[in-house]
Amino acid sequence: MDLDLSLAAPDLTAQLVDAESVSGGEKPLADAIEAALRPLPHLTVHRDQNAIIARTSLGRDQRVVLAGHIDTVPVADNLPSRLERGVLYGCGSCDMKSGVAVQLRLAAQLPGTNRDVTYVFYDCEEVEAERNGLLRVSRNSPELLAGDLAVLMEPTDGLVEGGCQGTLRAEVVATGKRAHSARSWMGVNAIHEAGRILDVLRAYEPAEPEVDGLTYHEGLNAVFIGGGVAGNVIPDECVVTVNFRFAPDRSPEQAADHVREVFAGFEVRVTDAAGGARPGLGEPAAASFVDAIGGTPRAKLGWTDVARFSSLGIAAVNYGPGDPLLAHRADEYVDVVAITDCEARLLAWLTA
Amino acid sequence: MDLDLSLAAPDLTAQLVDAESVSGGEKPLADAIEAALRPLPHLTVHRDQNAIIARTSLGRDQRVVLAGHIDTVPVADNLPSRLERGVLYGCGSCDMKSGVAVQLRLAAQLPGTNRDVTYVFYDCEEVEAERNGLLRVSRNSPELLAGDLAVLMEPTDGLVEGGCQGTLRAEVVATGKRAHSARSWMGVNAIHEAGRILDVLRAYEPAEPEVDGLTYHEGLNAVFIGGGVAGNVIPDECVVTVNFRFAPDRSPEQAADHVREVFAGFEVRVTDAAGGARPGLGEPAAASFVDAIGGTPRAKLGWTDVARFSSLGIAAVNYGPGDPLLAHRADEYVDVVAITDCEARLLAWLTA
Repeated sequence: MDLDLSLAAPDLTAQLVDAESVSGGEKPLADAIEAALRPLPHLTVHRDQNAIIARTSLGRDQRVVLAGHIDTVPVADNLPSRLERGVLYGCGSCDMKSGVAVQLRLAAQLPGTNRDVTYVFYDCEEVEAERNGLLRVSRNSPELLAGDLAVLMEPTDGLVEGGCQGTLRAEVVATGKRAHSARSWMGVNAIHEAGRILDVLRAYEPAEPEVDGLTYHEGLNAVFIGGGVAGNVIPDECVVTVNFRFAPDRSPEQAADHVREVFAGFEVRVTDAAGGARPGLGEPAAASFVDAIGGTPRAKLGWTDVARFSSLGIAAVNYGPGDPLLAHRADEYVDVVAITDCEARLLAWLTA
Repeated sequence: MDLDLSLAAPDLTAQLVDAESVSGGEKPLADAIEAALRPLPHLTVHRDQNAIIARTSLGRDQRVVLAGHIDTVPVADNLPSRLERGVLYGCGSCDMKSGVAVQLRLAAQLPGTNRDVTYVFYDCEEVEAERNGLLRVSRNSPELLAGDLAVLMEPTDGLVEGGCQGTLRAEVVATGKRAHSARSWMGVNAIHEAGRILDVLRAYEPAEPEVDGLTYHEGLNAVFIGGGVAGNVIPDECVVTVNFRFAPDRSPEQAADHVREVFAGFEVRVTDAAGGARPGLGEPAAASFVDAIGGTPRAKLGWTDVARFSSLGIAAVNYGPGDPLLAHRADEYVDVVAITDCEARLLAWLTA
């Protein structure tokens, strides 16, 4: 597969979409990206498995990181791509090969930028966190990700979305005492006890804190419930799995403390947690970016890989073409004009 | 295997316990029972797979049915039997080979009873209802089960337990609308909605009706709960499986109507129901039995096979040696004196 970086960004997007790259199968596309970038004299190219990192070394005061994942969710009978009345359909068109096309176009077109730029193309974003290519690079070669600002080019509908919320899951356990259901009063029904956990959830008022000028919106929800032993037994345990989405003014530890406090009196087992990222829009690098892109920045509510940059001490924002609500859908698409608009704004910012 | 019906009932119980007969593996024991009863000239012996029915034909005004199952729950390292200080230990000692031993002893000893007697020995009581031997005989040859009173010789601690409660299971469904858990307010959480089902269960006041002079005690309980799609999804369905144990003054249809009324506003799917049995202790055959056995009869709260006799229009009671709370336990046992006491009382009733 040969990528033609001289194509217009929408055409390059179509070429990328047609290069199937479901998580775990990114090698041919990673090879093609590496082969397309290696000849460019203004870039130093590094490879870590199927992640490609290409950096300028112009000696500028600031360095910005433009990052995107090259994998997609499984194909859903939506390849090859199809262009129809200014809309490009196909697996990954929105999430996020249009963003990757913009990265590649900028890398090819701009030997001399006003800031040093690190282009990061990584694998396995759509699968479990342990396989995530950005996490792997951040462990193997954190110096390659260094910068004053990172822009994660996931679809944001062309708006700047600052930071991201954290996510924590915990099992909240109601206990009881087994008995035969014909003599239920001899036992204590753990499922009925779990009603008190659901009472707490139903009454919970999520915070909507302002962090660095953006308004977040937390949420505490049951995502699983399970209990029961047999059809004639009063059960002695019922487990409610809750998911707490928390604003980036709480650390994962503070989020866990909050959940334990909310469910005081019940056993609470935190099973996994990932911290959010502050938007950091007050930082000079981020402020100039927001000015260049325009629009009113908003808070990112879902967890994204910006949190990995945040954990490296790098302010990070989400910005890219495409409607995030179309991601992972079989009828996924991106407006061609959104791709060219994104490219133009970033080009202006990097050359002003 | 040869059964020696001249043994005293406790010794015969030990012989029966040592004849392992886990549900589905009753054939050797059924063969032995048939072989032991066939030679007795006062009995006509019928066989239906591993169920044996032996009947006197003395032309008496009344006929009573003495019924017991010959299968046990799986052996739990509790065979062979062991006699220690007047207590017989072993799988099935309590539930219910001691009752079966009493049946066999009466059958062997009493060529001339004051009532005609039908002795029923059946298979597969300890497994799913569709395999139940008494159900099979009631379908194949209901005339073999005819009588004025049936005594199910399950362990009752030597007390007469009248009738039994019915049991019904239903799925009560809470629905919602899926959404990403980072924007939970875009959806409706079905698990939280299920809190309203648990509210109903927690507030439910079970009836304790008197039926034919005995006080029953109903119960409505969750026995299973399940819901959840993924760790980051607001779920759109949560199912609470409830078990309603109802007194024999309600039919299964009335019980289902009651459950639907209690959970008005929710989808209710009745998955299975088995009617109870009225104690019928006012009937002449039952009254003379209660007089002969003594003690104060009490209501049977668990569902038992007396309901099968009830559905054939035959009044039925539970009466047998052994503590019902010991059934299915690895340390199951029966007091030897309970066996001989049960035998003596039934012998007196059938010869008075």
